[in-house]
Amino acid sequence: MAASTTPSSVSGTEVGARIMAWADALAVHTEQPGMLTRTYLTDAHHGAAAQLAAWMEAAGMTVRRDAAGNVIGRYEGTEPGAPALLTGSHFDTVRDAGRYDGNLGVILPIACVAEWHRQGKRFPFAIEVVGFAEEEGVRFKATLLGSRAIAGTFDNNVLDNVDDSGKTMREVMRAAGFDPAGLPAAAHARDKVLAFVEVHIEQGPVLLNENLPVGVVTAISGATRFIVELDGLAGHAGTVPMDMRRDAAMAGAEIGLFIERRCSGTPGLVGTVGQFNVPNGAANVVPGRAVFSIDIRAGEDAVRQAAVADVLAEIERVCARRKVRAQVRKTHEAASVPCAPWLQQQWAAAIERQGAPVRLLPSGAGHDAMAIAAIADVAMLFVRCGNGGISHHPTETMTVEDAALAARVFSDFVEHFSARP
Amino acid sequence: MAASTTPSSVSGTEVGARIMAWADALAVHTEQPGMLTRTYLTDAHHGAAAQLAAWMEAAGMTVRRDAAGNVIGRYEGTEPGAPALLTGSHFDTVRDAGRYDGNLGVILPIACVAEWHRQGKRFPFAIEVVGFAEEEGVRFKATLLGSRAIAGTFDNNVLDNVDDSGKTMREVMRAAGFDPAGLPAAAHARDKVLAFVEVHIEQGPVLLNENLPVGVVTAISGATRFIVELDGLAGHAGTVPMDMRRDAAMAGAEIGLFIERRCSGTPGLVGTVGQFNVPNGAANVVPGRAVFSIDIRAGEDAVRQAAVADVLAEIERVCARRKVRAQVRKTHEAASVPCAPWLQQQWAAAIERQGAPVRLLPSGAGHDAMAIAAIADVAMLFVRCGNGGISHHPTETMTVEDAALAARVFSDFVEHFSARP
Repeated sequence: MAASTTPSSVSGTEVGARIMAWADALAVHTEQPGMLTRTYLTDAHHGAAAQLAAWMEAAGMTVRRDAAGNVIGRYEGTEPGAPALLTGSHFDTVRDAGRYDGNLGVILPIACVAEWHRQGKRFPFAIEVVGFAEEEGVRFKATLLGSRAIAGTFDNNVLDNVDDSGKTMREVMRAAGFDPAGLPAAAHARDKVLAFVEVHIEQGPVLLNENLPVGVVTAISGATRFIVELDGLAGHAGTVPMDMRRDAAMAGAEIGLFIERRCSGTPGLVGTVGQFNVPNGAANVVPGRAVFSIDIRAGEDAVRQAAVADVLAEIERVCARRKVRAQVRKTHEAASVPCAPWLQQQWAAAIERQGAPVRLLPSGAGHDAMAIAAIADVAMLFVRCGNGGISHHPTETMTVEDAALAARVFSDFVEHFSARP
Repeated sequence: MAASTTPSSVSGTEVGARIMAWADALAVHTEQPGMLTRTYLTDAHHGAAAQLAAWMEAAGMTVRRDAAGNVIGRYEGTEPGAPALLTGSHFDTVRDAGRYDGNLGVILPIACVAEWHRQGKRFPFAIEVVGFAEEEGVRFKATLLGSRAIAGTFDNNVLDNVDDSGKTMREVMRAAGFDPAGLPAAAHARDKVLAFVEVHIEQGPVLLNENLPVGVVTAISGATRFIVELDGLAGHAGTVPMDMRRDAAMAGAEIGLFIERRCSGTPGLVGTVGQFNVPNGAANVVPGRAVFSIDIRAGEDAVRQAAVADVLAEIERVCARRKVRAQVRKTHEAASVPCAPWLQQQWAAAIERQGAPVRLLPSGAGHDAMAIAAIADVAMLFVRCGNGGISHHPTETMTVEDAALAARVFSDFVEHFSARP
């Protein structure tokens, strides 16, 4: 493969080793010894921010923090003050997290900038690497805080959200030296951003199973979520004959299996019953009640909407036949965020130049790029996730070879980057 | 229907009204104001026992309490000291119970004895009405305490069981004036018991749906219970394609629907998944784990065992196909207790003489008769349960007409009773 690749200013495997070492070093910043948990504006979070800032400075970037706590490193272009190609990802984590989710998308660009800086290489545009301070929503039950601040879509209502100790986000920000009043100024002007690209571990098994190191994201899937409460009739497990039952759990089971069937076989469509419970269930009682969640996602909104419509119709059919009452409450709906075709094409070209096959795939998970899409065209590069594609878990893993290839692809992408006409 | 009936010494509807009024009066004895909860040896339990004893005495019976707290009223036959036809049921209740479950089987015979006493009527055998002190197992997580004491099968290990306040059963019995050392003496001698018959509300919808007031129980169903734990692989609901999932909840749903199908269509066979839970389930996570219960019952053991074998085989098939690991733990197994055919025939004859159709049905629920079967032939009369067959619930109900008919049938049964040759 190496023979057919185009040289990139970031080459060899050293950069891969550096990325892996930095991921390990960043994982030291945790709230909970023995596992990686780093939520918004905790001591661990401040430690990680300081480390990122140090690496950015060493890579020749000027570093600032904005009012949301984002860490922003700017590598000037040939002309100071030029519009920037924005990249980055989040450096907060879920509880007991893996070390690449989010963090990879901050570290990898810094490592590339460090190489360019070493080589004295500059581009006709600036590069800004953003470590988004918050994406996962763990501490304050509100997600994408960092990227929303930069997109100018920060919802001030969430400043009143409290963490487990009862502190409001507003208090916590002030105590950490970040002034919520400065949030509007954190928004980036549309004409100063050429595009936003995010490098992220896939968090799924698609690339792994196809033996591919990287992929180009076509869209961040839209999602619809419901909570379904079914009310049948509780009864004695020994005394109510099968044909006289109104078993809420079996109605739920039938609906669950329909969702699974309906969402199988259509690429990019997934449907999940992640919560399923018979409240106060007892072994000797026919379930009178069942509660479950539905999560349906697809890269294309029409595909998702058609599946949702079929599932809702099936809920009605199953419940009518079983004489079970259904209460279906929509808890979330988000349209898909398409990745800009012109950016996808430039990613694909860079991957080809680096000798890897191009695989297009939707992202079923949400990412900072969703928020940044409000001010710029966005696109994403997925990097293969090892260990069956497991993420949000300490066994999340990736290889040094994939880190090196992803860095070469990112570097190639930047070197050949051509702003939208 | 009245025209074709044979007169019984208990006739008219007055006895029905009395039974209903006594059920109401007994329901006053509760631990929890606003609902009926009466567990073993609480103040409410003592109050109900005293009330039953008072009614028994007024009905011409001699009353004693045994070491288990059972209330035993004896109505002598024409020859004092003769072997007894034993009848009765339990007067403890579940939490937030109905007022007929158990209690009906104590009250109804007392009301009949009261009539015979008023008419100076005696039989060539004694009648003993037992208010079993404990059947439901609520307070000490051990069931059938009263009937096991009388059957001589009381398990002394349960004396160490504790209630929610941490008191042992032994302490509680002593504090109430019942000496555990006297339990062996509570056992009835086999040659003093001609038979045991129990009147009980059906606790199911079979008689109600067939518009029948009473039924003859053929057997108390045997039961097999399992707890099944399924381990698949947790994953991100957005990023793991459908065909790469190992969803434990969907495996459980498929098994549950198989159980439902397999147990449908065979009279007397029932299968229930009463508990179903995805531990720590989240809307956006593919379930890596699911836990559920299985309860399979049938009047005939061979029917139950065949269903259990099929269900276990299906669990293996489903889990192999879905790459899910199953841990199946048997938590309970009890063979069915057949009701003696000669007693069933005498019930059937009494029902016919009282002008009602004879319906034979198994009891899916356990009853005191199960324990008494260790020392005597047993049989049961079921009385129609209103309100869809709901029991173990405050809306459990029955009609005064059915109470009157059941009393006439019971009275007729006793008057024509012929001991096993």
